[in-house]
Amino acid sequence: MPEETLSFSDSEREFLEKYLPPNSRQHDGKLPSITLTFATSLDSSIALAPGVRTQLSGPRSKAMTHYIRSRHDAILIGVGTAAADDPALNCRLEGAGGYGSDGLSQQPRPIVIDPSARWALSEQSRILVLAKAGRGRAPYILTSNPSPPKESVELLERYGGKYISMGLSKVVAGRSHLDWKTILEQLKDEGLHSIMVEGGGSIINSLLEPQNQNHVSSVIVTIAPLWLGQGGVVVSPEQGTDETGTVITASTLKAVKWHPLGEDIVLCGTF
Amino acid sequence: MPEETLSFSDSEREFLEKYLPPNSRQHDGKLPSITLTFATSLDSSIALAPGVRTQLSGPRSKAMTHYIRSRHDAILIGVGTAAADDPALNCRLEGAGGYGSDGLSQQPRPIVIDPSARWALSEQSRILVLAKAGRGRAPYILTSNPSPPKESVELLERYGGKYISMGLSKVVAGRSHLDWKTILEQLKDEGLHSIMVEGGGSIINSLLEPQNQNHVSSVIVTIAPLWLGQGGVVVSPEQGTDETGTVITASTLKAVKWHPLGEDIVLCGTF
Repeated sequence: MPEETLSFSDSEREFLEKYLPPNSRQHDGKLPSITLTFATSLDSSIALAPGVRTQLSGPRSKAMTHYIRSRHDAILIGVGTAAADDPALNCRLEGAGGYGSDGLSQQPRPIVIDPSARWALSEQSRILVLAKAGRGRAPYILTSNPSPPKESVELLERYGGKYISMGLSKVVAGRSHLDWKTILEQLKDEGLHSIMVEGGGSIINSLLEPQNQNHVSSVIVTIAPLWLGQGGVVVSPEQGTDETGTVITASTLKAVKWHPLGEDIVLCGTF
Repeated sequence: MPEETLSFSDSEREFLEKYLPPNSRQHDGKLPSITLTFATSLDSSIALAPGVRTQLSGPRSKAMTHYIRSRHDAILIGVGTAAADDPALNCRLEGAGGYGSDGLSQQPRPIVIDPSARWALSEQSRILVLAKAGRGRAPYILTSNPSPPKESVELLERYGGKYISMGLSKVVAGRSHLDWKTILEQLKDEGLHSIMVEGGGSIINSLLEPQNQNHVSSVIVTIAPLWLGQGGVVVSPEQGTDETGTVITASTLKAVKWHPLGEDIVLCGTF
């Protein structure tokens, strides 16, 4: 097995179970489920600055992330994260395809939300190197751009990925918002029934908004015991208001469970 | 006992012990110790907006706060919090003075940092109503104003409080910062050896800065499983940089312990 193979024991898996999609799910025509998963500092920052890859959580949290990936059909991120991180977006858990077993079992499909098709992929992009090595899948890139760059289209298709051109946004009260219902309908048509959303900030904040919470089956947040400081990429949804215009709590989790993992804490909950 | 009396069991107290000042402390000439204690949302907000009192944590966290108050000589807050909240700043734990015992044992001295002496106290201020009733102490107000309003001086002194006019700030790199060393020397001269700092945002952020962390003996943060949303009063220290100017993590806790309390989590640590 590759040396970067990770393990996450059965006893560690237990606390997560009720926050994950069932192993054998009846695909009953419903929209795909979303598990919203990310790591923050105490000041709710996921990175020191936009475009700066920041290691926040410890090794146990990393193994957990890969276990959670193994339980989903797809992993979804925004183009900002994709462009900044050159991410692998595969599952390096022991037993996943390429990490102790043949084929691509437990390897989720990477989904990148890239409205203008700006993500510059190359043969050297980690995600394609891994797809080539049989240790992950090439991404599906959702874009509002009706004609993505031809070389990127060919490159992606060479490894089994593709662009999907579609309407990603809708305008509400004069502002453009991601249209999660349409995005999820598209992913369902692709045969993807469980989606792990990992970031970045604007994708997460969008899903924390009250009008989108109904698409989120569960939230799994890892919090590291440090403050990144002002100027970071912050997870915080838009301000909530009641019918009189008074500011109220934006989002509250239910069915809450806290689980220490190394130096970090993992918070699981639902809306 | 008054109906608002709180209890916090021995078994609940145990996890906090190593993060609290010793019960019988040798006052060896050192500066007073600071326990930095506050409650935030997941987006590190302590209030929905400046001046808006926001109940974040649950009843167990409230009882914990009053137990921690009982273990300190003084509670310190900034004038913003004092003016917004009309706070009681007493200890309502069962067994404290006025809550099951005579005298003022376990009643900490409230300290308010009020540079311009703008906090408008009256006979109806909760803090003075409680002092009058023998359920708390009148505050010491630290101010840079050499002549606070005469009526406020008289009102405070009637109940055993006072203004202390002093230099609260120092200028570092062209910006004014609270001068914690001088503040702590003053509090030591008042016979106060353990200080619980409760807020608000600017006081907390000041103590989280690297140059002030040496004054903080421990940090106790309660996190509630909700997002207040953008526009709140945020705990996040100034950005940290290394000698090359690269942005780095602002503050990291050591000796970390996480303890669930009701729906909330309590994080204890040191610098």
